[in-house]
Amino acid sequence: MDDLMSRVREFAEERDWQQFHTPKNLAMALAGEVGELIAEFQWLTPEESAAVMSDPDAGNRVRAELGDVMIYLTRLADVLDVNLVEAALTKLQDSARRYPVDLARGSASKR
Amino acid sequence: MDDLMSRVREFAEERDWQQFHTPKNLAMALAGEVGELIAEFQWLTPEESAAVMSDPDAGNRVRAELGDVMIYLTRLADVLDVNLVEAALTKLQDSARRYPVDLARGSASKR
Amino acid sequence: MDDLMSRVREFAEERDWQQFHTPKNLAMALAGEVGELIAEFQWLTPEESAAVMSDPDAGNRVRAELGDVMIYLTRLADVLDVNLVEAALTKLQDSARRYPVDLARGSASKR
Amino acid sequence: MDDLMSRVREFAEERDWQQFHTPKNLAMALAGEVGELIAEFQWLTPEESAAVMSDPDAGNRVRAELGDVMIYLTRLADVLDVNLVEAALTKLQDSARRYPVDLARGSASKR
Repeated sequence: MDDLMSRVREFAEERDWQQFHTPKNLAMALAGEVGELIAEFQWLTPEESAAVMSDPDAGNRVRAELGDVMIYLTRLADVLDVNLVEAALTKLQDSARRYPVDLARGSASKR
Repeated sequence: MDDLMSRVREFAEERDWQQFHTPKNLAMALAGEVGELIAEFQWLTPEESAAVMSDPDAGNRVRAELGDVMIYLTRLADVLDVNLVEAALTKLQDSARRYPVDLARGSASKR
Repeated sequence: MDDLMSRVREFAEERDWQQFHTPKNLAMALAGEVGELIAEFQWLTPEESAAVMSDPDAGNRVRAELGDVMIYLTRLADVLDVNLVEAALTKLQDSARRYPVDLARGSASKR
Repeated sequence: MDDLMSRVREFAEERDWQQFHTPKNLAMALAGEVGELIAEFQWLTPEESAAVMSDPDAGNRVRAELGDVMIYLTRLADVLDVNLVEAALTKLQDSARRYPVDLARGSASKR
């Protein structure tokens, strides 16, 4: 993770792209990449989506889109000085409190 | 990262939510969370977006939304058995080839 | 449609919000609202999604989110001086050429 | 609008694509197209975004993306039997109540 963050930063700095990398612009780039990721799944049944990686072409496209999403998420977090893993763990603890195991079990209201 | 992935998986399994966690559904949940993240930046100027973390309330909301995005991205990658950091590094190498430093420097056509 | 466009414009002007309504910001607001819309469907099976309007609460939420998406799409088109219906009809003609009925029939590659 | 809705429906029926057009799938397709639209604006300054239609290439791309978004939004509303213009007008009235002109004037808290 730290290595990835440094490399993405270096990639931007070598090209003098920091000027474009405001949080606002990076959030938009992240949304654009998530749009491409979701397009890979839009016409698949849930079952087909679960088997998507066994199709070499679709699998490669999904892997590439996940890579793009991860790049922009990492860059956005770097620019905002937010630790992504910590932020996720904190959110997970909140969710554990809001959805206690015995009440949430198998329920579809939120997951 | 690995620890986060295990905890998110455990969180889902304890609540018997694997049944809902198809790649299709998780890609939608990821898009929904990115929508909440982008909403934090939509009315800000680029300059205001760069200072967002210095406002305690907005900073906390942005951190929480980044955490949510990271949770669903991690869970989606886990379900698809994709290594996010590797996928991002591979994509970064592709981009380095497509945007050589001397040609891409400061250019706005893509970054 | 024209009436809606005028009313949305008036709504913005009365509140002096034109200053915030750049195409960039409105595209973000549209993406945020689509994120809320998609969240209504993320955990539903395809069959459940087809019956969503028969649940009064979910139906009202979906109708409200569609309204929000339509408001921002209309406002964005107004600011850009694009006729949405014409743009859609032009795109539909392109698609008719790219996906001839006899070849595209029932195929999942694109729809 | 009604004409557009009929034509989009006919387009889908001729190709036997109704089977793919569940609300869940169409909401995903809409999100994917909004992702392409937002990508047109992500690296532009607010000022550049306001002038985007004066660049013929960018203008054509934006018009085409708006057309795609409108097609899927219209199709989703048709499948759900929701009147988009009515839904938008209802939402606009709600917003007028929540953001009275004298309080909301020029304020950035929500628009």
